[in-house]
Amino acid sequence: MQFSKLVVALVAMTAGPATSWSAEPIQPVPAAKVKNTGMVELGKKLFFDPRLSMSGFISCNSCHNLSMGGSDNLKTSIGDYWQQGPINSPTVLNSSMNLAQFWDGRAKNLKEQAGGPIANPGEMASSHQLAVDVLNSIPAYKLEFKQAFGKDSANIDMVTDAIAAFEETLVTPDSRFDQYLKGNKKALTKTELSGYKLFKDSGCTACHYGPAVGGTSFQKMGLVAEYDTKNKAQGVAGLTGKDADRMMFKVPTLRNVELTYPYFHDGEAETLEEAVEVMGKLQLGRAFTAQEVDDIVAFMKTLTGKQPDFKLPILPPSNNTTPKPKPFG
Amino acid sequence: MQFSKLVVALVAMTAGPATSWSAEPIQPVPAAKVKNTGMVELGKKLFFDPRLSMSGFISCNSCHNLSMGGSDNLKTSIGDYWQQGPINSPTVLNSSMNLAQFWDGRAKNLKEQAGGPIANPGEMASSHQLAVDVLNSIPAYKLEFKQAFGKDSANIDMVTDAIAAFEETLVTPDSRFDQYLKGNKKALTKTELSGYKLFKDSGCTACHYGPAVGGTSFQKMGLVAEYDTKNKAQGVAGLTGKDADRMMFKVPTLRNVELTYPYFHDGEAETLEEAVEVMGKLQLGRAFTAQEVDDIVAFMKTLTGKQPDFKLPILPPSNNTTPKPKPFG
Repeated sequence: MQFSKLVVALVAMTAGPATSWSAEPIQPVPAAKVKNTGMVELGKKLFFDPRLSMSGFISCNSCHNLSMGGSDNLKTSIGDYWQQGPINSPTVLNSSMNLAQFWDGRAKNLKEQAGGPIANPGEMASSHQLAVDVLNSIPAYKLEFKQAFGKDSANIDMVTDAIAAFEETLVTPDSRFDQYLKGNKKALTKTELSGYKLFKDSGCTACHYGPAVGGTSFQKMGLVAEYDTKNKAQGVAGLTGKDADRMMFKVPTLRNVELTYPYFHDGEAETLEEAVEVMGKLQLGRAFTAQEVDDIVAFMKTLTGKQPDFKLPILPPSNNTTPKPKPFG
Repeated sequence: MQFSKLVVALVAMTAGPATSWSAEPIQPVPAAKVKNTGMVELGKKLFFDPRLSMSGFISCNSCHNLSMGGSDNLKTSIGDYWQQGPINSPTVLNSSMNLAQFWDGRAKNLKEQAGGPIANPGEMASSHQLAVDVLNSIPAYKLEFKQAFGKDSANIDMVTDAIAAFEETLVTPDSRFDQYLKGNKKALTKTELSGYKLFKDSGCTACHYGPAVGGTSFQKMGLVAEYDTKNKAQGVAGLTGKDADRMMFKVPTLRNVELTYPYFHDGEAETLEEAVEVMGKLQLGRAFTAQEVDDIVAFMKTLTGKQPDFKLPILPPSNNTTPKPKPFG
């Protein structure tokens, strides 16, 4: 092959597929780029380690269960000592694409988020100091921190860096919808395509756009009509105290939405059909017919991508110097 | 190679290594033989599925955490709704080698054991009927049951068969001690060997013998002197009502004992050193010196074998017909 032809071929290979989705409001989920394998492997262990909680029973994976769409499939989450959480657990899958973390966006990124639950009395109920003391008591962990960060002992910054590095790998490419976007027109059925068209035409993509089909803006829950809920969360107003921010929540990603039931910040919508119906009425002022709801739901189920694909991590054991868990207070 | 020489060589390959451990009270852990891959894969999913509990939060893996030696590393276990369990969670690793299951042996095998926690109000707090209804509502599960059992819908017998089939694969071969038994005399240090000699000479192997280094008999906890505990478990007497069975418990396996802290049925021994010291006094009437304790502990830590090595299972989602979990009663 001549050099000029080779260049043309390479350009076509890299830039080519983009043309098929460049006009669409949704783009394919890019595959994860792992920068530091050691840090990711360490973060994976930490994500599964219940010793980051005071009880020794709750890990990140308890509420962001990677066997179940990165969520717990409960209305609101269960914290240490079975405390009832105030809000629905958002999926950790594709969360690196969110403009901020938590429903109210109070953490600017995954690293900042990761420190929250560890020290939240209603979640993992530990403290950053205790979590770090536990990890530093375990030689195998210390070695992994040393290898990843070049330091002789861990601190909370390294802990949250490692967890965030692992979470950044939790993307779900290759959904049927992404196959469609990339040019495989047979990847979707007629019903699913009708649903996608309706999803765009009726305005859902005003908020649910981009590779994550959401996660890119804050919007008012109850734009056209007020949302009726017993849940006390006030969204961004809980941070700013401003009335204008009342019920402003981060638009959730719709990637893998078939797996992340129940829906909304209060987990009150048990089914996708209910969620679509309520969104139509409250956000778009539109009463979808049953057929329309079914079509949109059919489309939404094509957003389920490749789920986490790794071996169950084996955690290094505690020893005589490790602070003991307090499972019963 | 002549046929006769080939036969000799083959016999040597299969029977040969046995000679090096045939005189020992402990034998190597055999590798798992998987009979039905589909059933094992199904059982693995069920083992990790919190929908077998009433709350939707507790799975088999919650208390028999395969990232942590098949145990929860807590004094006693946490049941649904954070109920305090009555007894220390025994490891599921190598449990297929136990003569019976549970500390009091009330289940004759893994299949019978698997049904227990699901319907125990203090553990997973569900019922066999509800668990089966949940699974039968999920097409992907139904398909796997169909493929494994040839039936159109699951029943509790199939559920416990599948979980048991998975658990039978949870053996941990190739510990350093097994390498030593198989002829690698450099696999153990001098201290570890001294510990093993003392472990045999002082009579520990009267109860802790066989491939699992235990699991083969019931013995009285407090043989020489009474065991002082606030824990109310009475062992086999809880089943038979016989005074002679009071404090008779199944001898636990010592395989992976470094990972399965804390120790004893009440979880009162936090360290291996404490466990060895107490056992010496109560079972053998012998006060080990600190050096002797350290040597025995060093030997015990060589019993950690190859931990579970498989991908995190991805669970099929619930749907609109699936009975809903009750996380808050």
